[in-house]
Amino acid sequence: MTIDERLAELGIELPELPQPIGAYVLWVQTGNLLYTSGIGPQERGQFPYRGKVGAGVTVDEGRAAARLCMLNLLSLIKQGAGSLDRVERVVKVLGFVASAPGFNDQPLVMNGASELLQQVFGERGRHARSAIGVNELPRDIPVEIEMIVELKA
Amino acid sequence: MTIDERLAELGIELPELPQPIGAYVLWVQTGNLLYTSGIGPQERGQFPYRGKVGAGVTVDEGRAAARLCMLNLLSLIKQGAGSLDRVERVVKVLGFVASAPGFNDQPLVMNGASELLQQVFGERGRHARSAIGVNELPRDIPVEIEMIVELKA
Amino acid sequence: MTIDERLAELGIELPELPQPIGAYVLWVQTGNLLYTSGIGPQERGQFPYRGKVGAGVTVDEGRAAARLCMLNLLSLIKQGAGSLDRVERVVKVLGFVASAPGFNDQPLVMNGASELLQQVFGERGRHARSAIGVNELPRDIPVEIEMIVELKA
Repeated sequence: MTIDERLAELGIELPELPQPIGAYVLWVQTGNLLYTSGIGPQERGQFPYRGKVGAGVTVDEGRAAARLCMLNLLSLIKQGAGSLDRVERVVKVLGFVASAPGFNDQPLVMNGASELLQQVFGERGRHARSAIGVNELPRDIPVEIEMIVELKA
Repeated sequence: MTIDERLAELGIELPELPQPIGAYVLWVQTGNLLYTSGIGPQERGQFPYRGKVGAGVTVDEGRAAARLCMLNLLSLIKQGAGSLDRVERVVKVLGFVASAPGFNDQPLVMNGASELLQQVFGERGRHARSAIGVNELPRDIPVEIEMIVELKA
Repeated sequence: MTIDERLAELGIELPELPQPIGAYVLWVQTGNLLYTSGIGPQERGQFPYRGKVGAGVTVDEGRAAARLCMLNLLSLIKQGAGSLDRVERVVKVLGFVASAPGFNDQPLVMNGASELLQQVFGERGRHARSAIGVNELPRDIPVEIEMIVELKA
């Protein structure tokens, strides 16, 4: 089964490619590694989730925002690699969660992204990860994620 | 001298392998690089240090927490690489320090981890590093560290 | 035109090499990738910008601080690689912006670094990037940047 078929089976339609907010590009490939920029929860050019998890944003909304970040990242990787079937292994995910004071469940939020990777890629989606809380993110988004993917030679 | 012998000489016993808090794995190897997940100061399944450096946590306690993070990372790398003797070079350390408002000595905290690397690995332990302050970390831990290690071919 | 000639054309003089604040080194090369440490806006051993963007530090000052971080990083890469002409491609820039509550224009700040890369390196300077807000940084600097550069074989 191709990854596109797997996405269809999961009922997932990838969003259109996110646009960079600034003087950079969405990805760079070096050797067989593809490095992505930090991506927020974009949907049709909008950012449906705003605010801090633990205050205006619930953990469930944070999880959904992290999943939406990852959908955008999959769209980006598909374009960068030509096809999601070229993904040999997801290497690393670094996620920043805009956190209200006293909010310490960043891993639960990031699971929204990590679980999507495992659903889509199976074993190849198992990745190293860091989940970090921060006080502010661009455009008041609640989650921003960057990642490194190994492509097939 | 093997690294295990060096650890014994330093009186260091590596902690049991940390457990991931979420849907990810502790490390991924790609090529000869091993990427770790972000690891907190775990000890026998507990997190003995909690809170923000500069408020409930002193700089010395923060240093000890950073050192404990690195002990867990060494345990993880030993398992990931098969042996710590396979470490060719520590490449990069990225450390996040949960910081009370006005606390700006993140480098002093991170030195607890960096100095351990130099004690254990000598020249091979010299690494690039970033020390970053953040407002919140998972489980209210004061330090979280991820790293990249180059393994021998 | 060499990169040094390009810098002269832009009227840019690289600062002296920054000094590490702690038990680490400024860069590590592994394979053809050069990883830098996180670098602040240093100038002749001083840190002319201090505070949080959105409070004591304006966006324009933040942009200037990000540009100064990148000038230091160029100085570091020049030393690490032997020559800036050995840069094949800027791969990744990770920037942390010390942010006052409610400040969400981290990308505008980081553009001060990204635009310099494009001026100096042209197409080779196009990079993946993340811009992250944090509550505190070492020495109360407003910006800290780390990067990965691919060198020519």
